[in-house]
Amino acid sequence: MTKPDVRHHPQTPVYSHKINDPFWSHYIELVRSVVVPYQWEALNDRIEGAEPSRAIRNFRIAAGEEEGVHYGMVFQDSDVAKWIEAAAYLLSAKPDPELEVLVDSVIETIARAQQPDGYLNTYFTLREPGARWTNLAECHELYCAGHMIEAGVAYYHATGKRMLLDVVIRLADHIGTVFGAEPGQLLGYDGHQEIELALFKLYETTREKKYLELSRYFLDQRGASPHFFVEEWEKRGRTIHFGELDMVHRHTYSQSHLPVREQSTAEGHAVRLVYMCAAMTDVATETGDTSLREASERLWSNIVSKRMFITGSIGSSAKEEAFTGDYDLPGDTAYAETCASIGLIFWAKRMLQLNQDSRYADVMERALYNTVISGMSLDGQRFFYVNPLEVDPEIQRLNPIYAHVRTRRQGWFGCACCPPNIARLLASLDQYVYTPVVEQATLYVQLYIGGEAEFTLEDRRAWLTMDSDYTSTGEVKLIVRPDSSEGMEFTVALRKPDWCVNPELWINGENTDQDGFILESGYMKVTRTWKSGDEIRLHFPMELLRMKGHDHIRATFGKVALQRGPFMYCLEEVDNGRGLHRIQLPRDAQFSVGSGERMPLGVPALTTIGRRMVSDEDWGIHLYRSDVQWDIQPAELRFIPYFTWANRDEGEMSVWIRECE
Amino acid sequence: MTKPDVRHHPQTPVYSHKINDPFWSHYIELVRSVVVPYQWEALNDRIEGAEPSRAIRNFRIAAGEEEGVHYGMVFQDSDVAKWIEAAAYLLSAKPDPELEVLVDSVIETIARAQQPDGYLNTYFTLREPGARWTNLAECHELYCAGHMIEAGVAYYHATGKRMLLDVVIRLADHIGTVFGAEPGQLLGYDGHQEIELALFKLYETTREKKYLELSRYFLDQRGASPHFFVEEWEKRGRTIHFGELDMVHRHTYSQSHLPVREQSTAEGHAVRLVYMCAAMTDVATETGDTSLREASERLWSNIVSKRMFITGSIGSSAKEEAFTGDYDLPGDTAYAETCASIGLIFWAKRMLQLNQDSRYADVMERALYNTVISGMSLDGQRFFYVNPLEVDPEIQRLNPIYAHVRTRRQGWFGCACCPPNIARLLASLDQYVYTPVVEQATLYVQLYIGGEAEFTLEDRRAWLTMDSDYTSTGEVKLIVRPDSSEGMEFTVALRKPDWCVNPELWINGENTDQDGFILESGYMKVTRTWKSGDEIRLHFPMELLRMKGHDHIRATFGKVALQRGPFMYCLEEVDNGRGLHRIQLPRDAQFSVGSGERMPLGVPALTTIGRRMVSDEDWGIHLYRSDVQWDIQPAELRFIPYFTWANRDEGEMSVWIRECE
Repeated sequence: MTKPDVRHHPQTPVYSHKINDPFWSHYIELVRSVVVPYQWEALNDRIEGAEPSRAIRNFRIAAGEEEGVHYGMVFQDSDVAKWIEAAAYLLSAKPDPELEVLVDSVIETIARAQQPDGYLNTYFTLREPGARWTNLAECHELYCAGHMIEAGVAYYHATGKRMLLDVVIRLADHIGTVFGAEPGQLLGYDGHQEIELALFKLYETTREKKYLELSRYFLDQRGASPHFFVEEWEKRGRTIHFGELDMVHRHTYSQSHLPVREQSTAEGHAVRLVYMCAAMTDVATETGDTSLREASERLWSNIVSKRMFITGSIGSSAKEEAFTGDYDLPGDTAYAETCASIGLIFWAKRMLQLNQDSRYADVMERALYNTVISGMSLDGQRFFYVNPLEVDPEIQRLNPIYAHVRTRRQGWFGCACCPPNIARLLASLDQYVYTPVVEQATLYVQLYIGGEAEFTLEDRRAWLTMDSDYTSTGEVKLIVRPDSSEGMEFTVALRKPDWCVNPELWINGENTDQDGFILESGYMKVTRTWKSGDEIRLHFPMELLRMKGHDHIRATFGKVALQRGPFMYCLEEVDNGRGLHRIQLPRDAQFSVGSGERMPLGVPALTTIGRRMVSDEDWGIHLYRSDVQWDIQPAELRFIPYFTWANRDEGEMSVWIRECE
Repeated sequence: MTKPDVRHHPQTPVYSHKINDPFWSHYIELVRSVVVPYQWEALNDRIEGAEPSRAIRNFRIAAGEEEGVHYGMVFQDSDVAKWIEAAAYLLSAKPDPELEVLVDSVIETIARAQQPDGYLNTYFTLREPGARWTNLAECHELYCAGHMIEAGVAYYHATGKRMLLDVVIRLADHIGTVFGAEPGQLLGYDGHQEIELALFKLYETTREKKYLELSRYFLDQRGASPHFFVEEWEKRGRTIHFGELDMVHRHTYSQSHLPVREQSTAEGHAVRLVYMCAAMTDVATETGDTSLREASERLWSNIVSKRMFITGSIGSSAKEEAFTGDYDLPGDTAYAETCASIGLIFWAKRMLQLNQDSRYADVMERALYNTVISGMSLDGQRFFYVNPLEVDPEIQRLNPIYAHVRTRRQGWFGCACCPPNIARLLASLDQYVYTPVVEQATLYVQLYIGGEAEFTLEDRRAWLTMDSDYTSTGEVKLIVRPDSSEGMEFTVALRKPDWCVNPELWINGENTDQDGFILESGYMKVTRTWKSGDEIRLHFPMELLRMKGHDHIRATFGKVALQRGPFMYCLEEVDNGRGLHRIQLPRDAQFSVGSGERMPLGVPALTTIGRRMVSDEDWGIHLYRSDVQWDIQPAELRFIPYFTWANRDEGEMSVWIRECE
C-alpha cells in the first residue's frame, strides 16, 4: 500500500491530527466500536426488529450479484456512501484490517453496480432505468452521487486505494456530460444540495479544474429562470414523486427561489442551505469569486445573528425542516436537526478558510458541543434527529405541533440521515481543529481538542502536541516541535472563545500580558521562532454565563440560559421535579460547580437555590382565578450539560429558565 | 298564517323574549341587515371574487329545476339549512315579508329535491346515488340531515308553515328505517355529530317519541364494537373520501373511541364533541338517564376545569381542530374555533336545563362575550374561524405552526361553517337569556340581555321587561308584570356572575341584604308574590380582575389577563407598539376606565402605566449575550375588549401579559 500523492487546497496545507482528548476520544471511540459496526449491520439488514435498510442489497442487485428488486427511498444509496466515508476517517486515524476488508468488499460491489457510461444509482438503475435525470427536484440522483464522491475521496486519502475514487471520477465525468450549457445538456441542479461540495473535494484531490467548474455550474444554475424544476416537471408529464410536499413549485424549500448570489436570508430546508453554503464558500475561497463570497457572508450573518438557537441548532419549523423568519426561535416546536448543525460545522470550517475570524469557530464549537452530541446517546446507540430546547413529554404526546419531537432517542432506521452524519463528522473531527494558512505563516487553533498534529508551513514541517482539559477545567497545553534544530518562525493563532473574557496565556511558563500576543479577529496571535519543546499554556477561566436572547425573540424573553465553557445547560425533570415552567432563577443566584453525583465525561453539573412558584390556592374546579398569589418556595436546582439530556428517565427539559429579581 | 300548536319540553315552559339591548341589538341587527343578506348572495353565487358556493344551485339541480352537476363539499347542503335556520329566528323576532319570500322559495326547491323515499342530500343524489349511507364516517349525510331538521323546526316555530317541517319529518322517518338494530338496518352513526340534537328538537316539537329514541340510538351506537366506521370501510372496498385525514381509523376525532357513556375526557374534534354533548344532555334531561347525565357532567368538568381558554374557546390543536390534553392551552397556536364556542353555548343552555347551576351560564357568557363575537368584525362583514389569544402577524406568516391563524378576518366562502353558525346563534340569542323551571316555579335569569319576555309558570303567564346596561355600567333593571291583578308567586333566580363579588340588589327601590334573597348554586333567588310593576334593580360592580391561569398551564404562567365584567381584554400593537412580549404589568398598576377615544358599543378601554423592557445594549451582530441588562421604561398601555381586536390596523395582539412586581 502506497500513500497517495495527495494534492491540496493551496490555502490548506497538509496537516494531520490524531485526536487524543479526554472528552472527544470517547465519542470517536463510540463511533468506532458502536456506531459504525451497528450501521454496517443495519445496512445489511441484520438488526432485529428494525425495518430493513436493503441499501447494500440494492447495490448487489444492481451489480448482478443477487436477484431482487430495489427497496427503500430514492436516496437509499447515500447511507452506504456515508458509512464508507465514516469508515474511511476511522481508518485514517487507526489501521483496522477487519473494517478495511468490509469496506473493500462493498466498494467492489459498488464498482460492479456502476453502469458502463459511469452512471451510478441503484434506484434508477433497478426501478426506472429510462427515467434517469428526469426528476432532479425530488429524486436525489446528484445528492447520492455527491455522497459517493465524498466517500471515494475519503477512502483514497485513508488507504491510497483508488477503486472507489476511480468509480466516482467516472461518475463525475458522466455527470459532466449530462449537465451543462451545450445543446442536449441539462441546465439543471439537484433538489438537495451535496454534489457541489463533493465535486469541490474531488477537485481538491485531483486538481482537475473541470470538477471545480462543474461545482460552480450547479451553484449558478440554482434559481435561474425559467425554473428548471418546473420545466423538467412539464417535460416528464407533471408527475410528482413525494406527494405530500410540492418540491417542484415550493422553491424556497431547495433555495432555488433566487440565484444563490442574490440570496441574503436563510430560507427553506436547513440542511440543504448549509450544504449549499459550504460549497459556495469553497468555490469563493478557491476562485476569489466576490459575489459568491459576499452571499456566503450574508447568509452566515443572517443565520447566526437572527435564526440560530443558542445550542447552535437551526431550523425553526418541522414543516419542510426549514428556517422561518428572523428571531422566530421557539425552543419547543423547533426542528433543530442534528444534520443541520453538522452542515453548519462543514460550512464554518470553510468560512474559516475564507476569513480567519474566530466568530465562525465560535459557532462551530457551539453546534458541536451542544446540538451534535445531543444527537447521540452517551452509549452511542440511540439518536435524536430533532434537538428541542424545551420538552414536556406529556404535552408532546398530545399536541400535534410536537409530532416531530421525541423525548427519547431513537434507533437507527428508516430515513437515516442523522446517525451516519454524526459518525462521519466525529470520525473526521481532526480536520476541524486547525486551519494552517500558508501565506500568513500562521497556524490557527480553532478547537481545543487534544492530540498530535503534523503540519507544513512554507515547506517546513512541525509537530504540535495538544494536551487539552478544555471541557472540564479550561486548561490547554501545546508543545511545539519544529522539524529543525534552529527552530521555525511562524504564528500560532489561538482562538479566544467567545465565552471567555480573560484567557490566560503562558509561553514557556511565562505569563504573557497583552504584549505577549496580538489579539486580532478573535485570536491571540503569538509569533516567534519556535524551538523544539516550546510550550504554550492556556487557561480559559469558565465563568458561569447567564445568557439572554435578543429582545426580539419572543420565546426567550424574560428567560436566562446557563452556559459554562462551550456547554449550554438545562434542567431536567428527573433532577428538578415536574413543572419546570414554575421555576425561576434569581438574578443573584450563586452556583456550585460539580457537586453531587459524577457527571458523564467530567463536565460538571451546576447546582443552586432557585425558586419554585407554588399556588397557595386550592384551584378545585377552577382553571382561571382572579385572587391568586403564588407562594415562592426555595428550590434546589440542578442544571446538567445540554448534551447529556434524555440519558436517564424521560421527563421535562428546559434550556431557558425564567429569571427573577 | 296560524301560529303553530307548539308543544314544549316539560321542563322548559313557553317563553319568548324580544331582545332590546344596547349591546346585543347591534349584533342582531347586523345579522339581519348584513350577515343573512350577504350569505343569501353567497349561497346564490353572487359574491364577486369569492369562490361560488353553488349550495342553492345543487338543490335546484336535484329538484330538476336546472341542469348541472353537484359542486362543493359533501356537507354543502348544510350551509343552506343553517341560513334558513338563522332567517327563521329573525322572522320569529320581527316580520320581514321579503325575507320570508326568499325562504319559502328555497324551501320549495328543497322539497322538490327530496327523493320519494324521504332521502335528502344533494351530494349523493347527484354524484353518487348508489352510495347513500356507505360512508358515514366521512360524508356528513346525517349531519346535513340534522341541520335541515333544525331549520325545519325553527321555520315552523317562526311562521307556522309546515312545508319544511314535513320534509324533515319524512327525512327523519326515512333515517329511522335505515338505522337500527333490525335485520337489514345499519348499526351506524355519523362522523360529525348533529343529527342527535336535531332529532331531539324534532321530538320536542312533535312529541313523537321515535325521534327521541333515534337520537338516543345514535348516541349509544357511537364507540360500540366492532367499530362501525371500520366495518363500513371494509364493506365499501376501503375507499377514503378525505385523503388527508383518516377519519375511519382515527376514532378519537369523532369521539367514537369509547361508548359515549364511558368517556370522561374531551377528545378529538371540538365542535363534534360539544354537539354530541348537547344531545346527551337533552336526552339525559328528558329521560332521567343517569349514565348519560354523568357522562355529560364529566365531560363538561374536564373542559371547563382543564381544557378551555380564558376567552371561552376550546380546541388546542389545528390538526383535527381538536382537544389535546389537560392544561395544554397555547394561546398562539390554539384552534379556538368560533363554531366550537357556539357549540359550547348550545351545550351550556342544555346543562342549565339539567342542573340549575350558574357555572354553566358563566361559561356560556364567557364564550359569548368573548370568542363568539370576536368571530365577527364590528361591521358584520368578516369572520374569524380561529380565535387566538396571541398573534404576531410577522411570525405567523412565516412559521407553519400558525398556518391556520389569520390576523385579519376573512370573507364568507369555501367551507363556511362559522359565519352561518354565528348568524343562527345571535338571531336566536333570546332563547339563551332565561330558563323557566316549572316544578321549582322559578325563572332563572342566565344572561342580562335586555328586552321583553313572556313566560308561563304553573299555567300562569307573566311578562318581564329587562332594561340592561350590563355591558357598560353593570346596571340592570327588571320590571315584572303578572297576568293577574292579585299577583303571582314565583321565584326569580338572578345569576350572580362569577366575575362579580358583591352584586347589589334592590326590590322596589329597597336595598336587600343577605336576607332579601337566598344565594343558591350561584343564583340570588327572590321568592315573593310579584305584583305588576314590581321592580328588581341590580348592580354588578365591575371590578377590574387580574386573572391568572392554573399553575399547570405553561402558556399563561407568570402572566396576567385582564377581565372587566364579562369581557376579557387584550393589548394591540396599534395602541401599544411592537413587541408586546416585552411589556410587563406591575402587580399594583392603577387603571383608568374609559378614557381616550370612544370604544365600540360603549365597552370601555382600560389604560394604565406599565413597563416596557428595552435592551440598553447595542446587540450588533449578537443574537445571544451574557452581559445584558434591560432598561425598564414606563409605558402607557391601552387594553381593549378582546372582542374588538383586529378591527383596526393589523398587528400584534396579546391577552396574556407578563406580570412584574
